[in-house]
Amino acid sequence: MKPVSSELLDRVVVVLVRARNPNNIGAVARAMHDFGFRHLRIVNDYNLPFEMARSAVDASQVMTSAKTFSSVAAAVADCTLVIGTTAVGERALEHPLYALAEAAVLVRAEAASAGGRVALLFGSEKTGLSNEELSHCGFLLTIPMHEHEDVRHPSMNLGQAVAVCLYELVRREGVHAGTGVREPATADEVERVTALLREVLEAIGYMRRHPSNAGEEQIRRLVVRMELSAADVPVWMGILRQMRWKAGGGGGE
Amino acid sequence: MKPVSSELLDRVVVVLVRARNPNNIGAVARAMHDFGFRHLRIVNDYNLPFEMARSAVDASQVMTSAKTFSSVAAAVADCTLVIGTTAVGERALEHPLYALAEAAVLVRAEAASAGGRVALLFGSEKTGLSNEELSHCGFLLTIPMHEHEDVRHPSMNLGQAVAVCLYELVRREGVHAGTGVREPATADEVERVTALLREVLEAIGYMRRHPSNAGEEQIRRLVVRMELSAADVPVWMGILRQMRWKAGGGGGE
Repeated sequence: MKPVSSELLDRVVVVLVRARNPNNIGAVARAMHDFGFRHLRIVNDYNLPFEMARSAVDASQVMTSAKTFSSVAAAVADCTLVIGTTAVGERALEHPLYALAEAAVLVRAEAASAGGRVALLFGSEKTGLSNEELSHCGFLLTIPMHEHEDVRHPSMNLGQAVAVCLYELVRREGVHAGTGVREPATADEVERVTALLREVLEAIGYMRRHPSNAGEEQIRRLVVRMELSAADVPVWMGILRQMRWKAGGGGGE
Repeated sequence: MKPVSSELLDRVVVVLVRARNPNNIGAVARAMHDFGFRHLRIVNDYNLPFEMARSAVDASQVMTSAKTFSSVAAAVADCTLVIGTTAVGERALEHPLYALAEAAVLVRAEAASAGGRVALLFGSEKTGLSNEELSHCGFLLTIPMHEHEDVRHPSMNLGQAVAVCLYELVRREGVHAGTGVREPATADEVERVTALLREVLEAIGYMRRHPSNAGEEQIRRLVVRMELSAADVPVWMGILRQMRWKAGGGGGE
């Protein structure tokens, strides 16, 4: 649904900490623009990379409205959830660590809540985020990368890492009409499918045969994991209604 | 499952068509390296961008083993599935178009099958893929981007587009142990759920009542969109078997 999307786009803040390469800063701004995110914040001791990125020919709206801060604390002051990005294995992790796909669920939930902004922190190209910088984070996310035997410190290009993270946040939002990307079902629709599935499972005797699979919470999570699109809700409701009808003795062929 | 992953990594081929910027070619190679993909092919009238990318200081293994071709036909000759990437709205589309998340399911299915390689074609930074180049493609995929009112032809940075596509292919593979991401179902498992669902729909009379929703392709896509995890496959198979049993007259309460 568009409101979720536009709320998400407005609530997520990308924070670049000690980015040194103006091209990378520009690439981050472009990725944000591509996926519709607006709020870029730069934490740096000196402004040169940022000024160079801002004066680039193809600087986007994101770049021109970016803000600079002298500390991470100042950059995330209005954020209710702060997430650090990290390549795993770099340091002893004192924070909970989520794979990007999981972290995205938490980001979307926070953005849909009454909370404030959500900050995604990206460290410098060379060293990532320092322990002091990580101390501002509620949890860490990592983009799952291939483990090459000969590479001890995997790291992604900064623009690519931001592009991948933002893509994960919106991949199911259906920004383009008509591509077959589908608007996600609302919580209400998910609940209706869950209730009808439970009715069907009751009617066909599944509850009695598989009681350990059929608790209310388990059925709801099974439906939640379908990540239903709004368009598929009536299809599944139609299938389940037909099943209920059949299980109740309809037809009888 | 690791075997799926390594098969996927070996079966997917990234084909860059008329890429002009050596930095972009290098960025693509780096993204492939990060996610563990190995096969890069370059289609170009002249070799300069490729040679420049190959001689760059940080050229990766992917870059040094990349191969050049003089035509798209030659570059995809050993591929059983060829997919073109496109920004929507550029041209009249004669091909089926899938959002990246949907296309990835089809890529993984092909890579897990007995077929050959899967080619992902990326066009030049400026013009994308030509109609002739698209004619080699079985279908198109698009990365859903934000629709800015003032931008008619959205396009992503080439390295970022490749990074996002490859990320989508492996995002559920759980490359890092312990992050709690669920293993995706195999193509074979998806096919078994699809076949059983079709049987159930037949048995309950859904096919007759909703013929426009119940084609084989439609049912498969409905199941594909569930993005089943391996752990949920036996649960759904159990539910569907119980439905089939009930629809066949079992129980009769």
